[in-house]
Amino acid sequence: MIRSFIEVDSESHFPIQNLPYGVFKPTEKNEEPRVGVAIGEYVLDLSALDDAGHFSSTAVHQTKVFHQSSLNSFMKMGRETWKAVREVIQRLLREDEPVLRDNPPLRDRAFFLQKEVNMFLPVEIGDYTDFYASKEHATNVGIMFRGKDNALMPNWSHLPVGYHGRASSVVVSGTDIYRPQGQIKPPDASAPMFSACRQLDFELEMGCFIGSGNQLGQPIPVDQAEEHAFGMVLVNDWSARDIQAWEYQPLGPFLAKNFATSISPWVIPFEALEPFRVSGPEQNPKPLPYLRTDKPGSFNINLEVYLKGKNMQEAQRLSASNYRYLYWSIAQQIAHHTITGCNLNAGDLLASGTISGPEKEERGSMMELAWRGAEPIQLRDGERRVWLEDGDELAMTGWGQGDGFRIGFGEVTGRILSAQQINK
Amino acid sequence: MIRSFIEVDSESHFPIQNLPYGVFKPTEKNEEPRVGVAIGEYVLDLSALDDAGHFSSTAVHQTKVFHQSSLNSFMKMGRETWKAVREVIQRLLREDEPVLRDNPPLRDRAFFLQKEVNMFLPVEIGDYTDFYASKEHATNVGIMFRGKDNALMPNWSHLPVGYHGRASSVVVSGTDIYRPQGQIKPPDASAPMFSACRQLDFELEMGCFIGSGNQLGQPIPVDQAEEHAFGMVLVNDWSARDIQAWEYQPLGPFLAKNFATSISPWVIPFEALEPFRVSGPEQNPKPLPYLRTDKPGSFNINLEVYLKGKNMQEAQRLSASNYRYLYWSIAQQIAHHTITGCNLNAGDLLASGTISGPEKEERGSMMELAWRGAEPIQLRDGERRVWLEDGDELAMTGWGQGDGFRIGFGEVTGRILSAQQINK
Repeated sequence: MIRSFIEVDSESHFPIQNLPYGVFKPTEKNEEPRVGVAIGEYVLDLSALDDAGHFSSTAVHQTKVFHQSSLNSFMKMGRETWKAVREVIQRLLREDEPVLRDNPPLRDRAFFLQKEVNMFLPVEIGDYTDFYASKEHATNVGIMFRGKDNALMPNWSHLPVGYHGRASSVVVSGTDIYRPQGQIKPPDASAPMFSACRQLDFELEMGCFIGSGNQLGQPIPVDQAEEHAFGMVLVNDWSARDIQAWEYQPLGPFLAKNFATSISPWVIPFEALEPFRVSGPEQNPKPLPYLRTDKPGSFNINLEVYLKGKNMQEAQRLSASNYRYLYWSIAQQIAHHTITGCNLNAGDLLASGTISGPEKEERGSMMELAWRGAEPIQLRDGERRVWLEDGDELAMTGWGQGDGFRIGFGEVTGRILSAQQINK
Repeated sequence: MIRSFIEVDSESHFPIQNLPYGVFKPTEKNEEPRVGVAIGEYVLDLSALDDAGHFSSTAVHQTKVFHQSSLNSFMKMGRETWKAVREVIQRLLREDEPVLRDNPPLRDRAFFLQKEVNMFLPVEIGDYTDFYASKEHATNVGIMFRGKDNALMPNWSHLPVGYHGRASSVVVSGTDIYRPQGQIKPPDASAPMFSACRQLDFELEMGCFIGSGNQLGQPIPVDQAEEHAFGMVLVNDWSARDIQAWEYQPLGPFLAKNFATSISPWVIPFEALEPFRVSGPEQNPKPLPYLRTDKPGSFNINLEVYLKGKNMQEAQRLSASNYRYLYWSIAQQIAHHTITGCNLNAGDLLASGTISGPEKEERGSMMELAWRGAEPIQLRDGERRVWLEDGDELAMTGWGQGDGFRIGFGEVTGRILSAQQINK
């Protein structure tokens, strides 16, 4: 197992085997955001490595893509470049490689403690698509919204159901979330009313960032789909269930999810996830040929959700799920998305939809955990929850467990603020 | 009535009262796309006027926003700047204003015949939202998809139903449209199948471009909503009805509309539409206060759809509708969209949804005109249509009729190409 000269705890999310990309700026300095990778407790500034000429063997040399405030330009360069850059960084960080290790001035310029930087949204997101790829989640929601007999729509087993999400309100981990307001219609009301959301929820998801896109009119075949995928993040797709229940027919969720979606700041490259590649659930009925592939398309990634109410001493785990439960793979999502000729661009985000497992404690949303209010969740310090309350802090985390190392996603957090006054 | 020294026919869409913005490049020259306005049969190059110092009294001076390949930077500057710039252009074009009229070298540099330029997508579209604001359309579609008893959902009369559309595949008028492929499930089939779309449709819509946006968490009040709107275009929201019928439950249309949406190249400023402002249909039930406004929020804009099959000598009119039929206004759409705190950005497109009128010949989609295949449309030259066929050219146009002048939208056109071979 390769090791870095930077000390990395065996439970750290960011060993030399990971090397996720992010956009950061030293908190105390008035400098421009730029691209770095996480290593242990540090950020390695790629713009500093570039300035020192260390990427001269790769296509990023003289492009200044690491001096930019988003990963998009780098993502557009394609997998060969991503691989070459990753190899350079991994080599420079090895314990037996003196070039960076034994260059104190460069180390001073290039390393920052993660706790001393601000992280930004790593990608300028063009379009955001949200799938609905967990059978357990779709079934749970279906039962609650439409009853047991219509829970899973007939199309669900034949195609990765998805919809267009709102890209402008995707925010980076740590951004506070205002409780949304809008129209709701309680079951016993004769007419809708204006209200702050009373059924605010989280959704445990993961997202895939598209790197290299396709031309309009040119579908991406399923066997080539993963080549277009740059990396992954954790996603919390905040949801207003009461707004959703009233608005979603017939065109799908709109305001129920347009107020915020939070993502983790570090984009984990697909190369780092290879040790955790597994087959997803068996697909029955067999998908149509354009969705069929023999390559295992899922990943064994542990996922957890924690909640800390404002009166709680510490966060408490609400859910423990796993990415591998997802029925539809990223390759299938990409092939389906583009089969009409729809073009994907660098920076597009494809989220998985809520990732629920078969067990109750593996459910990925509050709605499922508390069964739409019917089964309140008992927490420490006398707290109970059926929905999220003002002041609640939600944190999601995820990692693949290797032999003596972890490939982690860090976390995506967000705190609920009370609804804003409307100027009317 | 003011007149320009440029001769403009009374039926022209582009008199001095209009002055829509677009992005163009002289066809024969290897030059960069830049911003112009349409006047009669010409494009007036705003970058040339700027180079000559004519915008020195406005905020665009020295910003080079008219030298860019999209309107976004100009749109972000806000209504005061839009107004000031419009006044300068209108003054320079007046028949009694010698500054440009009597400057032959500048006229040579600044005027191009529209038939000798290429038009580009005028705006970099961040997010694209499509509403469903025509009661007649929603009712027609509802009857066909869900039967007469469930035609109009209970929420429809209380809020402007909408959904997130696909921004990446919005294309400028004249772009060819590949017939999409995907999953369909004919009513008599036991399982879905892979097929080229058999029920390809157009949707007659108009779109509003957001100019100045809002901060996340800060709703835009309905009475201030129009201040954020920059201008309008024609929209053809191509739709694959068979793909839609199979996929759309429960999250709404996805692949059925992600392959292409065409827009007209000229963005008509709201100032030019003021003479046509009218009240929309009476709203009953009365909307909730956040959607309530006394200001008339609709426009009397005539809309037409033409089809020319590859065996037809000339185009034939399929539909004649009017923007004023829309139930929900742009101000209401913006107020609703942002009531949760969702942020709009410069360049976001808000389309109206299909604009159908009460009469059969006023229906804004093929599905409605031919009643989902039940009532074929008889055309000239022995042609019949129930859906769009390969080689069909679709054109939509629109204009407000003033006293002796027209404020027109030009047109949005697209031709259907046969489905591409999938590389698998």
